[in-house]
Amino acid sequence: MEMSSKLLEKAVSEISQLPGIGKRTALRLALHLLKQPGEHTKQLTEALNTMREEIRFCRECHNISDVELCGICSSHSRDKSIICVVEDIRDVMAIENTSLFKGNYHVLGGKISPIDGVGPSQLTIGSLVEKVKKGNVKELIFALSSTMEGDTTNFYIFKQIKDYGIITSAIARGIAVGDELEFADEVTLGRSILHRVPFENTMANL
Amino acid sequence: MEMSSKLLEKAVSEISQLPGIGKRTALRLALHLLKQPGEHTKQLTEALNTMREEIRFCRECHNISDVELCGICSSHSRDKSIICVVEDIRDVMAIENTSLFKGNYHVLGGKISPIDGVGPSQLTIGSLVEKVKKGNVKELIFALSSTMEGDTTNFYIFKQIKDYGIITSAIARGIAVGDELEFADEVTLGRSILHRVPFENTMANL
Repeated sequence: MEMSSKLLEKAVSEISQLPGIGKRTALRLALHLLKQPGEHTKQLTEALNTMREEIRFCRECHNISDVELCGICSSHSRDKSIICVVEDIRDVMAIENTSLFKGNYHVLGGKISPIDGVGPSQLTIGSLVEKVKKGNVKELIFALSSTMEGDTTNFYIFKQIKDYGIITSAIARGIAVGDELEFADEVTLGRSILHRVPFENTMANL
Repeated sequence: MEMSSKLLEKAVSEISQLPGIGKRTALRLALHLLKQPGEHTKQLTEALNTMREEIRFCRECHNISDVELCGICSSHSRDKSIICVVEDIRDVMAIENTSLFKGNYHVLGGKISPIDGVGPSQLTIGSLVEKVKKGNVKELIFALSSTMEGDTTNFYIFKQIKDYGIITSAIARGIAVGDELEFADEVTLGRSILHRVPFENTMANL
């Protein structure tokens, strides 16, 4: 794409390095910023710079936080002995939105994935194992995505903590609430039968 | 969407003000920047700020340019007496990509659209009419989109320049090259029959 301005070209090439944004969308965004008052661009770039420079990760759960200990870890109304292991901060937000989990989290920062060059040492597995070793953890809930990488990561962690006598569980996989059985894939349907729950329990959430 | 960091929240809210980007995508982009080295965010924001502050518009055609007179307007190999009137810089880029137009452009910066609060005075119509008045223009090619706003804008300009004895034309509307007739809409097909061209002319571009 030949452009009449090198400055525009540079901006478009930078924007299009963001995931899921191609050259065309990047151009649309750049032209949008040019049409808006300069103030808008300033606010956007300032917010990005401030975020990138000042954001911290909670020292306990590695969730994104403005302070050293995030709101969840510092809350007194949460059960610190139950830890939900998730991949990234979006999973924390998703689970928090359900308002049904009152334990703490542990954000791994990814999954073990040799193809993407992510090994255990790049994740926060070490500090999770440390937490378990200290003996204040009763249950670990694995809530990673059910892909090969997710399963590998779960198993890697499980091997390291299995001798400490804590409960380990995984979130239930099954047919989504409201979905029709006939459209479900076989693996999911199969699991939902294998891992069926006492009927009385299903009434509790209604 | 409740977030554990005000800084992240601010960044997401700024990103999601861009057109076509919702809260979810904005969060994905923000988290991507957080995962990358800080250098990336710096480069992105610098490119945006520099573009917004330093970019200029060509004083002749109002195309985006790094210098006072853009590459097309300052070129000696182009016919300055033929002016193609377009809505924005993306149209210039699209026509330039065809390599079939050797005249100059005039970028209006939008279309007359009362609903969006865009009147003729916000567009560069005045300077276009001035150019025509000076007498160096032989032909004006209208290449706005064929919407009500585009037609209104065309007609508004046409009324002001029709007494100066220049040729006015509009880009051809018709069935796209390679398209099947049966799938074309009636208006387009109708126009392509009304505005049929001598067969010999169609061979020229092959």
